[in-house]
Amino acid sequence: MTKLALMEKAERFLALHKGPPILVLPNVWDVATAKLFEQEGFLALGTTSGGISASLGYPDGEGIPLCENVSVVGRIARAVRIPVSADIEAGYGRSPEAAARAALAMMRAGAVGVNLEDSSSGCGKDPTQPLIDVGEQARRIMAIRAMAKSKGIPLLINARTDTYLLADKLIADRFSETVRRSTAYLEAGADCIFIPDTGILGRETIAELVRAIRAPINVIAGAGTPPIRDLELLGVARVSFGPRPMRACLGLLRRMSQEWRETGTYVTMTDTAITYDEVNRWFFDSSGARTPNPRLGTPRRRT
Amino acid sequence: MTKLALMEKAERFLALHKGPPILVLPNVWDVATAKLFEQEGFLALGTTSGGISASLGYPDGEGIPLCENVSVVGRIARAVRIPVSADIEAGYGRSPEAAARAALAMMRAGAVGVNLEDSSSGCGKDPTQPLIDVGEQARRIMAIRAMAKSKGIPLLINARTDTYLLADKLIADRFSETVRRSTAYLEAGADCIFIPDTGILGRETIAELVRAIRAPINVIAGAGTPPIRDLELLGVARVSFGPRPMRACLGLLRRMSQEWRETGTYVTMTDTAITYDEVNRWFFDSSGARTPNPRLGTPRRRT
Repeated sequence: MTKLALMEKAERFLALHKGPPILVLPNVWDVATAKLFEQEGFLALGTTSGGISASLGYPDGEGIPLCENVSVVGRIARAVRIPVSADIEAGYGRSPEAAARAALAMMRAGAVGVNLEDSSSGCGKDPTQPLIDVGEQARRIMAIRAMAKSKGIPLLINARTDTYLLADKLIADRFSETVRRSTAYLEAGADCIFIPDTGILGRETIAELVRAIRAPINVIAGAGTPPIRDLELLGVARVSFGPRPMRACLGLLRRMSQEWRETGTYVTMTDTAITYDEVNRWFFDSSGARTPNPRLGTPRRRT
Repeated sequence: MTKLALMEKAERFLALHKGPPILVLPNVWDVATAKLFEQEGFLALGTTSGGISASLGYPDGEGIPLCENVSVVGRIARAVRIPVSADIEAGYGRSPEAAARAALAMMRAGAVGVNLEDSSSGCGKDPTQPLIDVGEQARRIMAIRAMAKSKGIPLLINARTDTYLLADKLIADRFSETVRRSTAYLEAGADCIFIPDTGILGRETIAELVRAIRAPINVIAGAGTPPIRDLELLGVARVSFGPRPMRACLGLLRRMSQEWRETGTYVTMTDTAITYDEVNRWFFDSSGARTPNPRLGTPRRRT
């Protein structure tokens, strides 16, 4: 991608955080899932590092080498026209330089946004200090911002704080700690604050966080989360889904397995599958170099 | 994998074709899908080259470079204990040497079986000759068998004939052509004959094919296919699914998108998803090097 194209994409992505409407950002883990959501009309995509890691055989939490994560993000960013934001976990190294290096690698791969989290277990540090020191994390965000500025790209920094994700005994006052961290991260150059949770963030808390933080907020949606239009009314700027869409797919494969075992039929597999031709057309169209087999009118195999 | 381990796995895979019971062989396209089906108790796995290609952004039909296909198969084979069979499409080159080279690369990556198809469009050849000449295809199978013998591995060769897959006007007498090709492929060293179709193979034809071919037969299951237990009664040795499980997952993501748009809720995503911990445990367990974060009792993030 040219620098101009990357700049344009980054600006477009940033603008999507200035809603309403709320930005619905599906998380993808390979090119096929990215193409599916692009075709469904979403305006931008995030990656799920948990999903990419599982797809490649690594545990979540920086189990995957950065270069392999970058490689998948690059494939995805090259395959779609919409902006892609990359999950760089805790920065693949504790220093500000490491975080900036990870963000630069993602930018070079075509991403125009990054998630950086402040949970330290990815770095394998002291279990009594589950979150990276707020000043240290702010310096890591500053390093990413400085790197992006030096390259002339308005990279969207989605600063994630894990205050509502870790076991509650580890964080004394979640709300205050979230606001304190958000303020520091925004001052350091973050554009959006990502507050993932385990389904415990109710409407009240979300509204209070929006009021207190006064900047775009990203929540993660799950079983206990208010519906998307309610999130929008509450002032949430962006909703994403983490590895949950992938885990739903794995759940579907489990139900498929059960059906094969129990009745030996194929309804779960065939019921609402998308067609062979539709999948293949994504790549014939986008590559340009290949066209469907004229012999059959469509790509060769319909299995 | 040591040569001994590969031999043992290849023998185990071959034995699974001597049923009943019928071998149910789910097709996978990444490590996560392989782990899911292994955990569901299946005794072996096949890959779907169409699925791997889409996952990486290539069209089906050898759109993916062989090396990238091999790389994914290697990840999968290293991640599971059960035998893995690799789809090498039309051999990534028309010559017997090319097909043997592709099969060797897959064997080195840990696969103990290969699918080789006789549809020529993957090689971009004459549309009036949709199938590779039967003698030529037999020589390609012989080359793979000779290679495997020279390495001392009883590699399972699943010889695919596309007689029932291509438009019917292209093949004069499908049944005779299938039997003629199967006979030649078995003589050349194939262990199993794979006859994919578009849902047109009824019970009668399947039974007749089993009787005429007198060797293990692999059918692909879809909407029009008899249930698995019926296939077993008809004498089918192996049933696989091609890219259909993947297309079902993409269909699930489409339904998820529709729900997000229409009601803004998350039931499709959360309803039957497998848990975060379950996915992550696959990789903590298998790597051995990492253990779940003791601070939380489970891996760090529950999102």
